[in-house]
Amino acid sequence: MSNPAVPADPGRPLFDKVLVANRGEIALRVVRTCREMGIRTVVVHSTADRDSAAVLAADETVQIGPGAPKRSYLYPPMIIEAALRTGAQAIHPGYGFLSEDPDFAEICARSGITFIGPRPEVMARLGDKVMARELMDKAGLPVVPGSTQALSDPAEVVTTAKRIGLPVIIKASAGGGGRGMAVVREWDDLLPAFRSTRAAARAVFGDERVYLERFWERARHVEVQVLADNHGNVVQLGERDCSVQRRHQKLIEESPAPALDPQMRARLAEAAVRGVRAAGYTGAGTFEFLVDGRQAAFIEVNCRIQVEHPVTEMVTGIDLVREQIRVAAGLPLSVTQDGVRPWGVAMECRVNAEDPSRDFAPCPGELTEFVPPGGPFVRVDTHAYPGWRVPPQYDSLLAKVIVWAADREQALARMNRALCEFRIGGPGIRTTVELLRDVLANPIFRAGDHCTALLRETNEAGVPSRP
Amino acid sequence: MSNPAVPADPGRPLFDKVLVANRGEIALRVVRTCREMGIRTVVVHSTADRDSAAVLAADETVQIGPGAPKRSYLYPPMIIEAALRTGAQAIHPGYGFLSEDPDFAEICARSGITFIGPRPEVMARLGDKVMARELMDKAGLPVVPGSTQALSDPAEVVTTAKRIGLPVIIKASAGGGGRGMAVVREWDDLLPAFRSTRAAARAVFGDERVYLERFWERARHVEVQVLADNHGNVVQLGERDCSVQRRHQKLIEESPAPALDPQMRARLAEAAVRGVRAAGYTGAGTFEFLVDGRQAAFIEVNCRIQVEHPVTEMVTGIDLVREQIRVAAGLPLSVTQDGVRPWGVAMECRVNAEDPSRDFAPCPGELTEFVPPGGPFVRVDTHAYPGWRVPPQYDSLLAKVIVWAADREQALARMNRALCEFRIGGPGIRTTVELLRDVLANPIFRAGDHCTALLRETNEAGVPSRP
Repeated sequence: MSNPAVPADPGRPLFDKVLVANRGEIALRVVRTCREMGIRTVVVHSTADRDSAAVLAADETVQIGPGAPKRSYLYPPMIIEAALRTGAQAIHPGYGFLSEDPDFAEICARSGITFIGPRPEVMARLGDKVMARELMDKAGLPVVPGSTQALSDPAEVVTTAKRIGLPVIIKASAGGGGRGMAVVREWDDLLPAFRSTRAAARAVFGDERVYLERFWERARHVEVQVLADNHGNVVQLGERDCSVQRRHQKLIEESPAPALDPQMRARLAEAAVRGVRAAGYTGAGTFEFLVDGRQAAFIEVNCRIQVEHPVTEMVTGIDLVREQIRVAAGLPLSVTQDGVRPWGVAMECRVNAEDPSRDFAPCPGELTEFVPPGGPFVRVDTHAYPGWRVPPQYDSLLAKVIVWAADREQALARMNRALCEFRIGGPGIRTTVELLRDVLANPIFRAGDHCTALLRETNEAGVPSRP
Repeated sequence: MSNPAVPADPGRPLFDKVLVANRGEIALRVVRTCREMGIRTVVVHSTADRDSAAVLAADETVQIGPGAPKRSYLYPPMIIEAALRTGAQAIHPGYGFLSEDPDFAEICARSGITFIGPRPEVMARLGDKVMARELMDKAGLPVVPGSTQALSDPAEVVTTAKRIGLPVIIKASAGGGGRGMAVVREWDDLLPAFRSTRAAARAVFGDERVYLERFWERARHVEVQVLADNHGNVVQLGERDCSVQRRHQKLIEESPAPALDPQMRARLAEAAVRGVRAAGYTGAGTFEFLVDGRQAAFIEVNCRIQVEHPVTEMVTGIDLVREQIRVAAGLPLSVTQDGVRPWGVAMECRVNAEDPSRDFAPCPGELTEFVPPGGPFVRVDTHAYPGWRVPPQYDSLLAKVIVWAADREQALARMNRALCEFRIGGPGIRTTVELLRDVLANPIFRAGDHCTALLRETNEAGVPSRP
C-alpha cells in the first residue's frame, strides 16, 4: 500500500519507519498519519489480531505473541526485538498497554529507539497520581482535597477520610482508564472498599498503593488537550467534556464543553499550560479536571494520546498524532497558540461490542455485517470490517463515531443520524448503539446540564431504556 | 431508523416528509440531511436499486419502475404519484435525471408539491445554454466568444467558426454533465462534428440544437458555489477547481482552486453573485467558468446540487442540502456572506466501477469486499456496501472520497492515504482508484499547474500509468 511515486510530506521528520506497539483502532489511526507523513510502518500484533485492519494496512507486520496481553502487547522484549529487526527508529505506544510505562520508555531509549511520548522521568512522576497531585498543587493548580501520599494503614485511611469528609473516592496510585476505583458514601463501607481497591490495584497494575480524594457527586469531567515540544513551545487546544460515563468509563465526549463559562474555560486552559511547564511535559497530553459550578480541581494527567482525541482534531483541524511524531523527532510544533482557533462542535460516541441484556458483557464473534456511517461531517475510526472476528481477549471498543457541526444542536442530530445508519451484525454480536441513542435523547444531556452522575441517576430514576 | 425521542432541529422547515427522486450516493446524501432536520423521507427506486443503501436508510420506499431510467427516475407520473400517495410535501431531485427539468418542476407545482430547486422559469432560461450565455453577457459577465443563438444551418456554423477562430467546441444547447460535446481543431472536421453532435444531442437530450464556443485549450475549470433564498439573500461559498477531467467528466475537485490569484477569485465570486441576481436564481447553484491566466469567462449555470458539493461543505462547514431544503420551505439562508469563512483545503476523488483494461468500461457485479477509508479528516459518500451488486443500468460512480487538510500538500498526502486504504473487490469489479493515484502523483497536478488538458496530454506524452 505504499506509494513511492508520491513525495513525502515536506515537514517530514527524522523517522523513516515507526513501529506501532498497540492494536485496534488506535494502531490503524497511527498508521494513517505515518502514511500521510511518508513514514513506513511496522505493526506488531498478537495471534488474536492477525487479521485486524491495522495489520492489513501496515507496511510490515511482526507477530509478537499470543492473545494474552502480558505475553504480547505488554511484553517489551518482543516489541523491542521487532523494532530492532525491522529497523524502526521510533515506537508509537498508542493508549493503554505500555503507553504510560516509564520503564518501557527507558528500555526504548537504551535500545536506541525513540519512544513517542514524554520523557520517562516525566511519565514516572505524573503516572504516580499522588506525586502528580502534589506537583500540580505546588504549581498553583487547584486540587481536589485528598491524601497527600499513598495510604497503606487502615487507621490512616480513616483519619484522612474524616479530614476530607464523605463521600470519598479511593483510587489506585498507579491507576488510570477508570479502573481500580471505589466510591465510599457510608463509614461502614470505608475499610472494606479500601481493602478491595488495594487488591484490585495489585492485580491490575501490580502496585497496591491507593489514595483518597473527596468525591464530587455532581461534577463534570473536563479535560484540556495540550501539546508541547522540546523547544519550549506549549499550546493548549481547548477542552473536552467527558462527563457521560458508565462505571468511570467514558461513553460520549465533546468539545467545547457545554455550559462552561468563558472564565472557567480560560482558567482550565491556563492551569494546564502551567502544569505542562511545571512538569517539563513534552508531546501530546491531557490535563483532567473536575468542574462543579464555579469550582474546579485538577485530578490527573494522561501522558499519551487519548481515545477521545478526534474530538479536538475535528474542532481545531490539527492532526494530534502528527504533532506527537514531530515532537519526538525533535521538530517544533507545527502550530502556535495564536494559530489555534477551535471551530464548531465535535462529539464522539464509543461503540462497544457489548450485550446490554447481559450487563453489557463484551460479546466477541464474527461481524457478518459492518457498514459504518458516512456522509457530511462524519468520521469513523475503526479497525473492524465485515467478516472480521471481534477477539475475546481485549476491550470491547468496536468503533468511534465522531461528528462535527456548526452548533451543538446540529451535532446531536447528526450523531443520532450517524448511529441510526450504523449496521452491525453477527451471531451473538450486540452493541451499545441503542444506549448511546438513549443518552442523545436524554433531556438533561441535550440541555448540557449533565454531570458524571447522569447515567447512574437515570438508571436509579427508573427511566426506561429503549429496547 | 427514525428516532421520535430526539426532537427535531429547532430551525425545522415546513416539511414533515420529503421524497427523494434520485438514486445512488446522492439519494443517501439527501436522506441523511433530512433525518438530521427531523424530516421523514420517501425514497423512490427502480427494481435495479431495491437494495441500495439509500433505500435501506429511507423511512419509506416506493418502487417506481424497472431499471430503464426513462421508465423510472425519468418518468414524472410515477414519482408524482408516489409523493401524493405517501404525503410527501416536497421532492428533492438530486443531480442528473429530472433535477434540471423545468417541466418536472412545473408538474410538481401543479400537483401541490414543492420542487427543491430554482423556479421552473429560471431553470428553463439557464438550462438553455445559449440563452444563459446571453443573459450573463447582458449582466456584464465575461463570456467565451461564441454563437449568440442555436445553430441549425451548416453555412451559419462555418461563418460563426470563422468569426471566432479554431479550435471551437460544439455543445448541445440542452446539454450538461460533459455529454454532447465535440472539440474541432481542423476545418475539415467542423461539419462532420456539427452533424454528429446534433445527432447525439437529439438522442441524449431530445433536443438537437447546438451552439459553438471558442475552445480554450489550456483553461482551468473553476466554478463558484452560490446559495440564494426568496428573501433577497445571496451568498457565494468560494470556488472549486474541477480541471482534472477525462472526456469532459470531472475526476478530482478541490477548493480553493490552486494558483488562483486573489483578484481572480474575487472577480469570479462577484460575477456569480451578479449572475444570481440577474437570473432571479434561488436555492443552491453553480456558476461555471473557464480561467486562462488573467482571462476568465462564464460557461454555464448548474441549477442543482453537484456531485462535487462536499468539497465546499468541508471548507465552509455548511450543509448545502440543508440550505436547499430551507430555501424551498421559504426560510432564509442560515448563513450570511460575512459568516462564510472557508478554512483549509478540501479535495474529492470520484471512484468509479470501471475497467481500465477495457477503456474504462463500467463493470457491474457483486461487491464481495467493500471497506471504505476512514480516520482523520476523511469523508466518504457512497451508496455501496459489502454484498451489494453494482447495477449495469446507471453511471459507474461507486463512492466519493473527500478529504480536508490544513494545506494542499497535506490534502494530497491524505487523499493518497485514503485511496490506498479503500478495499473494493468482487468478480469482475475494477475501479479508477489507481488512475486517481496516478493523477495525485503527477508533478503538474501536484504543483497546481494543471488545466483541463492534463489527462489528455499525459496520455499523449506516453507517461506510463501505474498498473
